[in-house]
Amino acid sequence: MSVLVPQPVRIIGTGLIGGSIGLALRAAGVDVVLSDISPGTEALAVEMGVGRTPAEDEPDPALVIVAAPPDVAAHLVVEALRRWPGAVVTDVASVKTTVLAGVVAAVRAGEISAADLSRYAGAHPMAGREVAGVIAARGDLFQGRPFVVVPHGTSTPEARASLRALAVELGSVPIELDAAAHDAAVARVSHVPQVMASLLASTLVDATDPALGLAGQGLRDTSRIAASDPRLWVEILGANAAAIIPVLQAIRGRLDGVLEALASLEGDPDPRVGSRRALAGLIAEGNRGVSRIPGKHGGASDAFTTITVLVPDRPGHLARLLTEIGQIGVNLEDLRLEHTLGKKVGLAHVSIERAHESLLTHALRERGWTVADG
Amino acid sequence: MSVLVPQPVRIIGTGLIGGSIGLALRAAGVDVVLSDISPGTEALAVEMGVGRTPAEDEPDPALVIVAAPPDVAAHLVVEALRRWPGAVVTDVASVKTTVLAGVVAAVRAGEISAADLSRYAGAHPMAGREVAGVIAARGDLFQGRPFVVVPHGTSTPEARASLRALAVELGSVPIELDAAAHDAAVARVSHVPQVMASLLASTLVDATDPALGLAGQGLRDTSRIAASDPRLWVEILGANAAAIIPVLQAIRGRLDGVLEALASLEGDPDPRVGSRRALAGLIAEGNRGVSRIPGKHGGASDAFTTITVLVPDRPGHLARLLTEIGQIGVNLEDLRLEHTLGKKVGLAHVSIERAHESLLTHALRERGWTVADG
Repeated sequence: MSVLVPQPVRIIGTGLIGGSIGLALRAAGVDVVLSDISPGTEALAVEMGVGRTPAEDEPDPALVIVAAPPDVAAHLVVEALRRWPGAVVTDVASVKTTVLAGVVAAVRAGEISAADLSRYAGAHPMAGREVAGVIAARGDLFQGRPFVVVPHGTSTPEARASLRALAVELGSVPIELDAAAHDAAVARVSHVPQVMASLLASTLVDATDPALGLAGQGLRDTSRIAASDPRLWVEILGANAAAIIPVLQAIRGRLDGVLEALASLEGDPDPRVGSRRALAGLIAEGNRGVSRIPGKHGGASDAFTTITVLVPDRPGHLARLLTEIGQIGVNLEDLRLEHTLGKKVGLAHVSIERAHESLLTHALRERGWTVADG
Repeated sequence: MSVLVPQPVRIIGTGLIGGSIGLALRAAGVDVVLSDISPGTEALAVEMGVGRTPAEDEPDPALVIVAAPPDVAAHLVVEALRRWPGAVVTDVASVKTTVLAGVVAAVRAGEISAADLSRYAGAHPMAGREVAGVIAARGDLFQGRPFVVVPHGTSTPEARASLRALAVELGSVPIELDAAAHDAAVARVSHVPQVMASLLASTLVDATDPALGLAGQGLRDTSRIAASDPRLWVEILGANAAAIIPVLQAIRGRLDGVLEALASLEGDPDPRVGSRRALAGLIAEGNRGVSRIPGKHGGASDAFTTITVLVPDRPGHLARLLTEIGQIGVNLEDLRLEHTLGKKVGLAHVSIERAHESLLTHALRERGWTVADG
């Protein structure tokens, strides 16, 4: 097995992310050494096969991965740069400017040299689970996910190359962004969506049971990530406040416009044109925004389309549908199953390349499936 | 075929909803007569098999279904109550208090009698598509969905029974709510989620391409319904402004708290406890809210659990997984497929009854599948 990353690798912090990186690297044959502030957690990680404890005469690591919360990551990075003067050092915190600022501050304070700083580059493997801890670690956690390499102005080519190699070893897709661009990006695609889902779900706390009985797929999808861990998200939101605030302020401004338009429409039989235009503008702007999200394979959204097939909700029927779609020779881009309150029939929303839509619709109908019209 | 609803049924307005009701009733053997303000739309609906045009000596309908936008529904209901003095009259607009208010106003104005009013009860079949028009109509649109029967204080038992029969004929689950309870419920489970998804998606309009390249399932789910039709939603939001405003105001108040907490945390190495508590409170409240959404078969959410299986993203593999799940004898509650940027491996999130979790996990592993822990 040919190993891409420089060895040995030292992982500092063996929670969900550090543990998953260790499992993936171990599976690739990499020598992984662990340390965690909690001896119990470290022992559990060793037992789970995440890596080994340091030897008495442990050689210096070639690559150090700090997998700790944003608030302590910078301190641990600085410590690693001082302790191992030959190592490339990275951290995997989900907010990058605050960590970089902490490391740069240590240069100014004389704790490390500018040359030390150049051995550092940040990283962010874009994956997570709604559960935490090494016990939830999985070696395949990063497979197929973007892995953001976050160099700063003086990061060495060796540091950048080591992190790209790490990304590939994890099965991820390396993408390079600077810290500010990274933080602005995750504010939009991850942190603000989390706030919006939590705000929406918080309104359900005092909803009546009959009201919740009317919930459909729209509410379920819109609120799903509101189930995430409060402790983790306090750290993330706090550390990326600077990037999140302007996006949330834009939302608040638009929300104020919506409330104003609604107030002027309330009970008004002949409402002002401007109020209706404000509401139409919101929905239309949302149309434009959602159409910009790339397809799951990185293609443009409009390369794909969805056909809807009626499926009896009993074991075997969905499998038969997918078997036949495979026989027809069409690959699934996505599949969403929908069934509802009290009934045993489901709708399979099958997302495929638009070019195959007509072929698949006809072939399924010939085989006796009910396919909804366009 | 035994028909439950009183006949003939007159459908006024043959768009997506009127057309889909007609298709479903025709399939059940019901005599359906159509009228639409647009002769072209009416002719197309007849051609599609939604129903027939009125005869020269057309007998009075037994049930009239007004399937028109909220802003004209009341007028058409009043007209129908006057024209057909023996008919039960309903409307299927997605906001009910404004329609009822319009009909009651016609009683006060002497246009119809109190006895006429008692033949009216509202209805709301909870289904829709992100496309509009009779061409998108489907006879199975309402299968398994809640169908809200919305009587008022003097609705006759006959009117209520006719609408429950209509619900059953459509394959829906009838639920009875008064107009205010209905409007408050849909504000929470449908209208406010639409506003939040549109607000979120609107922030993506000026996001950079690299940022959008980091988008994951969270953003996709949270913004999906932002693709809905602006014209339709202006009507709905405007008509239900009174019920939507307080929920959005609560969200704005909470959003202000989040912004305040973020501002106090921004760049602060030693943030105030209160700010962190405000953010943790938001996420925790979202946890509580999302846990209240019932499971898809009407059970409590916690009766179900999700296991994650790694699936090569090629035709046939997902089908094989589902075939084997069927062989193991476990029924799927839900299935969500997840794959990402540039990679050909997917994660199948298989939702099942919690009682089957251990059985299914072990059986799939024995068959060679990779099932995620935790």
